[in-house]
Amino acid sequence: MAQISNHMATAELQALDADHHMHPFSTQAGFKTKGARVITRASGTRLWDSEGNEILDAMAGLWCVNIGYGRDELAEVAYRQMKELPYYNTFFQTTHVPVIALSARLAELAPGDLNHVFYAGSGSEANDTNIRMVRFYWAQKGKPDKNIIISRKNGYHGSTLGAMSLGGMSGMHAQGGVVQNVHHIDQPNWWAEGGDMTPEEFGLERAQQLEKAILELGEDRVAAFIAEPIQGAGGVIVPPETYWPEIKRICDKYEILLIADEVICGFGRTGQWFGSQTVGIQPHIMTIAKGLSSGYAPIGGSIVCDEVAEVVGSGEFNHGYTYAGHPVSAAVALENLRILDEEKIIETAREQIAPYLKQQFEALVDHPMVGEAKIVGHMGSIALTPNKETRAKFAAEAGTVGYICRERCFANNLIMRHVGDRMIISPPLVFTRDDVDLLISRARKSLDEAYAKVKAEGLFVAA
Amino acid sequence: MAQISNHMATAELQALDADHHMHPFSTQAGFKTKGARVITRASGTRLWDSEGNEILDAMAGLWCVNIGYGRDELAEVAYRQMKELPYYNTFFQTTHVPVIALSARLAELAPGDLNHVFYAGSGSEANDTNIRMVRFYWAQKGKPDKNIIISRKNGYHGSTLGAMSLGGMSGMHAQGGVVQNVHHIDQPNWWAEGGDMTPEEFGLERAQQLEKAILELGEDRVAAFIAEPIQGAGGVIVPPETYWPEIKRICDKYEILLIADEVICGFGRTGQWFGSQTVGIQPHIMTIAKGLSSGYAPIGGSIVCDEVAEVVGSGEFNHGYTYAGHPVSAAVALENLRILDEEKIIETAREQIAPYLKQQFEALVDHPMVGEAKIVGHMGSIALTPNKETRAKFAAEAGTVGYICRERCFANNLIMRHVGDRMIISPPLVFTRDDVDLLISRARKSLDEAYAKVKAEGLFVAA
Repeated sequence: MAQISNHMATAELQALDADHHMHPFSTQAGFKTKGARVITRASGTRLWDSEGNEILDAMAGLWCVNIGYGRDELAEVAYRQMKELPYYNTFFQTTHVPVIALSARLAELAPGDLNHVFYAGSGSEANDTNIRMVRFYWAQKGKPDKNIIISRKNGYHGSTLGAMSLGGMSGMHAQGGVVQNVHHIDQPNWWAEGGDMTPEEFGLERAQQLEKAILELGEDRVAAFIAEPIQGAGGVIVPPETYWPEIKRICDKYEILLIADEVICGFGRTGQWFGSQTVGIQPHIMTIAKGLSSGYAPIGGSIVCDEVAEVVGSGEFNHGYTYAGHPVSAAVALENLRILDEEKIIETAREQIAPYLKQQFEALVDHPMVGEAKIVGHMGSIALTPNKETRAKFAAEAGTVGYICRERCFANNLIMRHVGDRMIISPPLVFTRDDVDLLISRARKSLDEAYAKVKAEGLFVAA
Repeated sequence: MAQISNHMATAELQALDADHHMHPFSTQAGFKTKGARVITRASGTRLWDSEGNEILDAMAGLWCVNIGYGRDELAEVAYRQMKELPYYNTFFQTTHVPVIALSARLAELAPGDLNHVFYAGSGSEANDTNIRMVRFYWAQKGKPDKNIIISRKNGYHGSTLGAMSLGGMSGMHAQGGVVQNVHHIDQPNWWAEGGDMTPEEFGLERAQQLEKAILELGEDRVAAFIAEPIQGAGGVIVPPETYWPEIKRICDKYEILLIADEVICGFGRTGQWFGSQTVGIQPHIMTIAKGLSSGYAPIGGSIVCDEVAEVVGSGEFNHGYTYAGHPVSAAVALENLRILDEEKIIETAREQIAPYLKQQFEALVDHPMVGEAKIVGHMGSIALTPNKETRAKFAAEAGTVGYICRERCFANNLIMRHVGDRMIISPPLVFTRDDVDLLISRARKSLDEAYAKVKAEGLFVAA
């Protein structure tokens, strides 16, 4: 590994990459003509590529490097654990210290009676676990037909068949494999779908779709509702303030389980340890991954409340993953949680940085191509539009303008991502005020360049 | 983490574990009354628990620690990589050196034109990828209805909904979530299902079920056939020698893709780099995990042949995982492959140890409760039976006797696993002759004790 990084030119690395590495969510053929950017090292909030460019990472890798890059403590913990016990399973009445310690710590951190952790290797796997677990729970309670899970269009829950089916990404569904007994309601995306309603009216209406679905499907058929407190990969959709209180009312009224997908929102992203706390809900199960280890080691899981854990634990749940509670990943996650806690990273982010970030980021709404700019804690988005008043979509295929904007960010050494024609950020929680300033200046420059290109190409036209 | 391991007594650790850690494939309630065994460290082929017991691990963790425990080189690589670049994604036209280097190395190692790697975090995730990939492949070729995957009863492919559905584990299927368009044929398990046929006749018959299924379902509906070269979690079922040549003939005859699940068989387990080489097949896709990193870091993936990669890569495959090609996991895997190669661990295991292991292990067939003992490379199993001649099952519930036997192994500081009433081994590839001797002596002692208990409890009775 080191050998290759030390002597190979970028073009050679790119050629090997194109020849042998199939990229996720990509058209592989494109890498033959335009090589991938080779990220070689990182520190704090910055990345460097093989050409020596320093890049501001406003996405925290892929919503995960909450603690920032280059925390040697995590490398040291991984090193010690890998020397002591690099692997052991927890299947056959065995356990190990890192998984015990992490479980106990997560039980402390998670709100209410979320005291039990079932591990997976990722958020995708954990959401497959959740599908199986809630169905097993109801079957154990004598209700095997209570097996439909309600989720949301444009939600994202992962890329396994189960998690992809919970998610409401039409492009993924179109490629097949959607599992049965998942029902999707509409998302609380006022900007795109709110029509003439006020955000408050719209939030209520979208929440009440849950109640309608429960009544239509039958309370005896619905096992659970799953949602991200704030939709992430769907484009950082901040719901109207009326949404979650109404969802909470409905969940309290009917006997269905509430699963909060905290893969993105968890571990400080929204200003609290969990997004559920920010939006004021107490779920029965939380899906966790990403920020759990700040991405330094693969790990995911489900934090489960007392009652569900007791019912599930009373029978043999025929489910589990080889790398569940992997000792090295668990030790790294625990050290990550220690640093987040002891260095007060979440509080500092919330109190010292988030207000400034919000002020600066939401001011992007003054840009001629930006119709909405919203941020909660350290996750935010802006909506690109050719007409702010009507909230119009572009006439071009969705994502065309977003992609142009992302390309300009990339060229300006800023990692922002586009989802359709929304531009999103999810910076490391260790972002400083200087980082915020750099983010905003590069974002403005990129928006300006994109706007010029969009106009020049005749794309600044409403659909 | 270290604090807890240093001052807590076993009972305290067990109590925390029971309270907060939900174990895979377990009845959680049991941990309240009988605490889990706490594994604290490992070296070579040995584990130690919190009570100071030294245990011989004849399962290599969970079929994964091929290289043995305690290889500091892997910890050092993880440490360096985690300091340099602990995480980056490969989604948005970016890449990094460890994933490039690992991909290029896997393309060298994998047979034929298996030159392209799509990464996942585990074997489960990779098999979900395979379901989606083969369907996308046929859709790209204008055959969206060619989407049924044929697999085998008692096969094991993982625990996500997709992978679980490919697998043929009835206990898992019974808990719901089986995905559509997966068709199962019977397994080549002569001992359990061969009846009056010779193993050779039976192997042919079972292989020909694939042809029958293709003809029944229609060649235009069948996307792929997936199988482990040698079934692992199903009980290390070594197929009759007639089986794979006939499967190969059928796959060559019909236009369906062959997926070899190499999660267990890969990386030396059967005496070659891949089980496909041992059984003489050239698959279109291989699923990999476990031995890829010797379990030191979570990683999995699919190695894909040129033609499939080209067709899939010509479109946008809407699929991928956050931790795909994780830089630390990739670096650890690459170092693991370097050691396997440079130290000639696979050749040494095959030529110096496997013949002796085979001789000693298969001699267990002389035990009064053992009807069959089979091993290929470093994966083997024995069938427990009350009647060797008739290959009878026990009258007790399947697995009752196997569990008794496993409990005796556990008590005798030997990790063997039971699958129903088969006892299985999958030792690290660095097993020495002394390890083999210790394995056999502890296995015989455990079998003797189990046999005495089975007879005393009136369980030595044919069904």
